[in-house]
Amino acid sequence: MTDLKTLGENAVKAKYKAALISTDKKNEVLIKCAKALQENAASIIAANELDLNNAVQNGMSKAMQDRLRLTPQRIDGIAEGLHQVAALPDPVGEIMEEFDRPNGMHITKVRVPMGVIGIIYESRPNVTPDAFSLTFKAGSACILKGGSDCIESNKAIVKVLRNVLEEEGLDPDILQLIESTDRAVTAEFMKMKEYIDVLIPRGGAGLIRAVVENSLIPVIETGTGNCHVYIDKDADLEMAVNILFNAKTQRISVCNACESLVVHSAVKDKVLPMIYEKLSEKNVELRCDAPSLDVLGDKAVPATEEDFGKEYLDYILSVKTVDSVEEAIDHINKYSTHHSECIVTENKEAAEMFQERVDAACVYVNVSTRFTDGFEFGFGAEIGISTQKLQARGPMGLREITSYKYRITGNGQIRG
Amino acid sequence: MTDLKTLGENAVKAKYKAALISTDKKNEVLIKCAKALQENAASIIAANELDLNNAVQNGMSKAMQDRLRLTPQRIDGIAEGLHQVAALPDPVGEIMEEFDRPNGMHITKVRVPMGVIGIIYESRPNVTPDAFSLTFKAGSACILKGGSDCIESNKAIVKVLRNVLEEEGLDPDILQLIESTDRAVTAEFMKMKEYIDVLIPRGGAGLIRAVVENSLIPVIETGTGNCHVYIDKDADLEMAVNILFNAKTQRISVCNACESLVVHSAVKDKVLPMIYEKLSEKNVELRCDAPSLDVLGDKAVPATEEDFGKEYLDYILSVKTVDSVEEAIDHINKYSTHHSECIVTENKEAAEMFQERVDAACVYVNVSTRFTDGFEFGFGAEIGISTQKLQARGPMGLREITSYKYRITGNGQIRG
Repeated sequence: MTDLKTLGENAVKAKYKAALISTDKKNEVLIKCAKALQENAASIIAANELDLNNAVQNGMSKAMQDRLRLTPQRIDGIAEGLHQVAALPDPVGEIMEEFDRPNGMHITKVRVPMGVIGIIYESRPNVTPDAFSLTFKAGSACILKGGSDCIESNKAIVKVLRNVLEEEGLDPDILQLIESTDRAVTAEFMKMKEYIDVLIPRGGAGLIRAVVENSLIPVIETGTGNCHVYIDKDADLEMAVNILFNAKTQRISVCNACESLVVHSAVKDKVLPMIYEKLSEKNVELRCDAPSLDVLGDKAVPATEEDFGKEYLDYILSVKTVDSVEEAIDHINKYSTHHSECIVTENKEAAEMFQERVDAACVYVNVSTRFTDGFEFGFGAEIGISTQKLQARGPMGLREITSYKYRITGNGQIRG
Repeated sequence: MTDLKTLGENAVKAKYKAALISTDKKNEVLIKCAKALQENAASIIAANELDLNNAVQNGMSKAMQDRLRLTPQRIDGIAEGLHQVAALPDPVGEIMEEFDRPNGMHITKVRVPMGVIGIIYESRPNVTPDAFSLTFKAGSACILKGGSDCIESNKAIVKVLRNVLEEEGLDPDILQLIESTDRAVTAEFMKMKEYIDVLIPRGGAGLIRAVVENSLIPVIETGTGNCHVYIDKDADLEMAVNILFNAKTQRISVCNACESLVVHSAVKDKVLPMIYEKLSEKNVELRCDAPSLDVLGDKAVPATEEDFGKEYLDYILSVKTVDSVEEAIDHINKYSTHHSECIVTENKEAAEMFQERVDAACVYVNVSTRFTDGFEFGFGAEIGISTQKLQARGPMGLREITSYKYRITGNGQIRG
């Protein structure tokens, strides 16, 4: 295996070349990659079988096995994803600002590639071509470190993609995979500050925490979502129940799913039984504070303090009662992971206050939190949902994984 | 002294209040702060005397003592700086984008404060009011950790500023100073991820490295500049000498000063003697590679490999000869700290290639690198020069220390 230092040096060489590839060429290559993945589906699926066999032997859960599995249909889906990225506008070279200074200097702020992007993710082989396509279109080289459980699948996919790069006369090191499954290598990877411009972890809270705590490379944190729906006293209660049901149950395992209900005391007696009835369709367990427990009685269980900070990713919902929108905002700001928060209200003043004061990437009025997504926002594909405030917040598309530079032109200006 | 945890909790409470202060009120407070610093100049200078006495006893160099010293004139300068920040446009609340989605959701991307900004800096008491004024105007709370050598000056300044906040009915914890000079406290401060949104180190390379290596909080790296001036074969040589002289000697201790000359072999015989003559006015030592040493003989000394990577901050210049603009670009990208780089040329193609391919925050054509500065770029004050690619690159003004959020409004949209 190539050692990490060589990998880093190769990536740096490749980034300068990646930055200069024209938009047309990038799109052409992405479409060829899609075709090559489909043509090589059999060998990729064979590699995936090795991973699945190991997974079964290692006692991996059925749900995890399903995430790991590749099928011809899923490879078609991946190929379709590459076509979508090819169709997106190229962010590189965009003139962001342009101005003159009194001394005659002309300054242009222009969008440029990030350089080398490192991505650390779990055992989902679909992330491999997805991450490559986005970083490639954004003009960067990438180094990928996927979960060890899908190493054979990743090697097979990367081999196909690197072949296309080579056939197209490009540097294959624009895409590199860390093949070692040794944790020490991953730890070392996160220290490679001199080669890598940004590290993006994609996966569960544990993975993200490990990266943030150990990386010397700037990190964009993604994905943990303790999302709230707040039902205001002036809510359309039927709308509120529909939004809550959608946000909680439409897909429970995702970061933009609702984990906690905040309800105004003025409507709790009316809306909580409606909510109980609707959520019972999916057997959602309600973990209630005292006032809401009073309403629901033995239809619910008492919440502990910890419940309000939890990202369940399960058919469980915590319930908190408040006496005002201000109290709702304070509660949410205290427990939020700053991902997506929603108020249901017909009151413009309450909506405005909520959107202004809630500290989250996406603050919704009368819309399900499930829309926090690059596709739903119209960004095309996304590389993740940022929950930090630096660089990017919320859904990250191509622009969010670029940087900029200033180009200054003059005729001999010196500083006095 | 307040313990760090309390400091963090206070900052979080204060950030929500800071975010809601109107532009007019912020400007009014900044002007009152300026006035208060001038009115309390005597007590601030008395505190500064304590620091200076300690500094003398501790054998601090004259240059460092000068950076530490406050005088009535310098306090006037600080007050003037606060007036300038008051006059800058408020970045908070700016609508950055606004669009509708096919399902009827209306999405607004709006600029919001960063939250809590931590700043770690060296023994320059002028940074204290400067950092406060910028973070305050940008709607954030700040926690400052200045060099221990200026702790008494910082305490006196912060006391005056916090008094103004309190008199104006604002939360004084919008500005907090870490008064402990214990290094363990600083180390602990850099781990306070749950309270602080971004950490900005301001100072020398050692300080910045220590923060990057130890912080769990996202960091914006600032300031290290190994800046190059490349004199192309098609340069106006007189202009080239003037730019180099300015970039190297106008102020040697700053990050945008030139540290290395790259010269095209076709002009080296002509331009190097001109450069030697001009730079002799300031006794600049030239450390040359073999071809340039051939030209200058005993007027220069040989460069080692390390010289090309050095930020001297001194009257020393390394000299590298190249045979093409491509070779110049490769050399610069190898040794650059990605701060500011300059080409002197009358050749548009060479200029374009240089600006496109050199990987730096600011890439100049026929302009001195000394212009990389928030004031010179027209941003008003600056909080530093970012040399990383995440969040901000180059001079960072108010906008660069803000974040954004998405506000999404609808009428019951749920995801299918």
